[in-house]
Amino acid sequence: MTTETSEITETSETTETGRIPERLTADLSTADLSTADLHEALEAPALSSMNLLNEIAGHYPQAVQFAAGRPGEEFFDLEDVHAYLRAFTDHLARDRGMSPAEVRRTLYQYGRTKGIVHELVARNLAVDEGIEADPESVVVTVGCQEAMYLVLRALRTGPEDVLLAVAPTYVGLTGAARLVDMPVLPVSGGADGVDFDDLVAVARRARRDGLRPRACYVMPDFANPSGLSLTHAMRRRLLDVAREEGLLLLEDNPYGLFHGGEERTPTLKALDEHRTVVYLGSFAKTALPGARVGYVVADQRVADAAGRIGLLADQLSKIKSMLTVNTSPIAQAVVGGKLIAHGCSLVAANVREHQAYSRNLRQVLDGLAARFPAGAPGSAGVEWNAPTGGFFVVMTLPFPVDDALLEHSAREYGVLWTPMRHFYDGPGGENQLRLAVSTVAPEQIDLGLDRLKALITEWSK
Amino acid sequence: MTTETSEITETSETTETGRIPERLTADLSTADLSTADLHEALEAPALSSMNLLNEIAGHYPQAVQFAAGRPGEEFFDLEDVHAYLRAFTDHLARDRGMSPAEVRRTLYQYGRTKGIVHELVARNLAVDEGIEADPESVVVTVGCQEAMYLVLRALRTGPEDVLLAVAPTYVGLTGAARLVDMPVLPVSGGADGVDFDDLVAVARRARRDGLRPRACYVMPDFANPSGLSLTHAMRRRLLDVAREEGLLLLEDNPYGLFHGGEERTPTLKALDEHRTVVYLGSFAKTALPGARVGYVVADQRVADAAGRIGLLADQLSKIKSMLTVNTSPIAQAVVGGKLIAHGCSLVAANVREHQAYSRNLRQVLDGLAARFPAGAPGSAGVEWNAPTGGFFVVMTLPFPVDDALLEHSAREYGVLWTPMRHFYDGPGGENQLRLAVSTVAPEQIDLGLDRLKALITEWSK
Repeated sequence: MTTETSEITETSETTETGRIPERLTADLSTADLSTADLHEALEAPALSSMNLLNEIAGHYPQAVQFAAGRPGEEFFDLEDVHAYLRAFTDHLARDRGMSPAEVRRTLYQYGRTKGIVHELVARNLAVDEGIEADPESVVVTVGCQEAMYLVLRALRTGPEDVLLAVAPTYVGLTGAARLVDMPVLPVSGGADGVDFDDLVAVARRARRDGLRPRACYVMPDFANPSGLSLTHAMRRRLLDVAREEGLLLLEDNPYGLFHGGEERTPTLKALDEHRTVVYLGSFAKTALPGARVGYVVADQRVADAAGRIGLLADQLSKIKSMLTVNTSPIAQAVVGGKLIAHGCSLVAANVREHQAYSRNLRQVLDGLAARFPAGAPGSAGVEWNAPTGGFFVVMTLPFPVDDALLEHSAREYGVLWTPMRHFYDGPGGENQLRLAVSTVAPEQIDLGLDRLKALITEWSK
Repeated sequence: MTTETSEITETSETTETGRIPERLTADLSTADLSTADLHEALEAPALSSMNLLNEIAGHYPQAVQFAAGRPGEEFFDLEDVHAYLRAFTDHLARDRGMSPAEVRRTLYQYGRTKGIVHELVARNLAVDEGIEADPESVVVTVGCQEAMYLVLRALRTGPEDVLLAVAPTYVGLTGAARLVDMPVLPVSGGADGVDFDDLVAVARRARRDGLRPRACYVMPDFANPSGLSLTHAMRRRLLDVAREEGLLLLEDNPYGLFHGGEERTPTLKALDEHRTVVYLGSFAKTALPGARVGYVVADQRVADAAGRIGLLADQLSKIKSMLTVNTSPIAQAVVGGKLIAHGCSLVAANVREHQAYSRNLRQVLDGLAARFPAGAPGSAGVEWNAPTGGFFVVMTLPFPVDDALLEHSAREYGVLWTPMRHFYDGPGGENQLRLAVSTVAPEQIDLGLDRLKALITEWSK
């Protein structure tokens, strides 16, 4: 059986990874290769820390789960996969006029590199996000991770190209950048989500150092891991600053739908008037992770050597053709069917999920307030932020938080969370942890917070 | 509707790719980026020639199709996808003892990076190929293309690392190497499939030039595009030479099952006693392309800086976690279900397909012999090889064969094929073309060959 594990990139590696199979342990003298002979990213913290955290989580499957940033599972239904597949094939026949042979070919055969659900994606963006995207500017990818990789691979032409990223940063972004040998320069997120002075300073310092900052990665809505969201005014300012500094903005938006009931702030892409934003889309939290379907909207105009102008999406498509050829049309059909079943609205498709995440978030925030009342002796130095939506809450504690403490927490107290330092490629987050509210069962939340309080009480002494 | 096109990498790009959308043509002055600002692979012939060929094929959908190296479509059945999914979920419950919630989680949730059908893949390799693979050494990938990419990404540590590849070479391999900035040094394939003297000379010259040849890519069975297969003796010698020269062998085997009725020659991996071979597996031709599921067997032992030894598969898994996270478990389930339905034998699963490909190949070879009899005036300088299996036949003509001739052939004669020069990263194949026998309908073969003969007759004058 597959070992179920936690993760901070939302991947889930088995604990076997890195383990030495029994039969090999007897023969350590005969390695065929050394990691020194392999790409240096394989030694990078972003790729290794994940495995370590997954291993800890894998050892304590009974612990209360505040670590995994995965979607909840309570509404999973196997029959949905069949129903979505049929909805999509019906759509091909009915709405797109395909013959039975064409429908079969579309599902079975090699297919369009940019994908077959691009028009449904564009309609979804119009319906849910107010983004008017040309379907030709959409590249459907193997999850959002491949979308990030395609963009970074395209932008990295040599050692001078660097990426800026608002810190703390999603580990999957940092790892993808390592794989294309592209340094990531952290920009302080501060208390509000982006420190603009630092953004400008980092970009200018990089240019002074002979580097070429190409883009800045940002998650404006309920960011992973900070939980922070940018205000409308900050979004407008970010677009202006990016333009002034010649940066593309890589907007990642996996959690925007799961807001707290307030009116949603427009995405950067919805506000983008100058094609400054490359929009990275995920269906993992809003449709199903197992489809591994994401996308990128890349409407930037690219001039080739002959002066012809095309879309950045078509350049990304060329890269994709050499990376994964195309995204499984069967997997796309499952997501496409879910979109069709809900009028292309993922808001409509996620009413139950949205309620569940909001309920969990409220329970966690209320539970923290009840256990660490202001002014009480046990509350000294214990703080947390209060996102109105999304999957994550960040706690600051009066002592260092590291993997050893996580292991202690799992073993002695039966509660799992993620040390924030893993989301900093450098100093930062030393006294912080991330609580994810998305997969924990409601009836376990108070138990988990009791255990967390007991840990904090012990460690504060 | 998706435009159906031919391809030489077995991808299928729409003809729209690279086209300037109407609304943009009016505004050529305002490009946001230039291809000079993007990764140089985007200007590489491997990535561009494909688009051009697809465009030609897309313009002549009624032409007889000897270009596309895709699997035939006559046995596609949409209901199979549902049946395979159910077979796999039954297997999880019955054979692996999963609860309904665990089955749902396995299909829906993020999953094991190395995949969930690794044990079925290992059984298939034992049953069909006589390869004894540790399931832990298998990484399930998004098609064989991702498998190639993972291996090249791992092996390329700096500008000194180079790859050898038997020429002519599958374009997807060359393209993947470009994307990791790894030069490909061609090794002459000669008339027998590999020129060993050239292999040794290329490796030694590279080392003399300060380069580090890491591996040699080879397709020993009915290679794409040459159609050639290595004899048993050549395979043994290739293993020895690779070992002497310190090279890994990257064995790609998409067509081995489609032999001509003779006893199959063992794969390199089946003969591999020293973990010299990294085996690249594809289900595109033997299960279904639309699943986009392939795999790599990487049982090489890798020592890390601390002297611990693990499998190369686990290093590839780390890279995969930052590229595509994991292969869609739904897509894996479709392939897994097909394996289960046929006792893990793809030989058993492909009886009808095997017969169809063999019939087409025989008809093409017989048709060529009938139209170009030895000694006849119209046969002067017209030659072809005679593979006993696989998808491809290579013709040599008494005049240069290029894209302009292909376009002429499609427009004036209604027959599509692939200029061999696209498979050489340098000189080679100038007078040759590739005929693919896999997708052409039997009743169209003679018509297509008549048209080809008319073209050759015109052009020979």
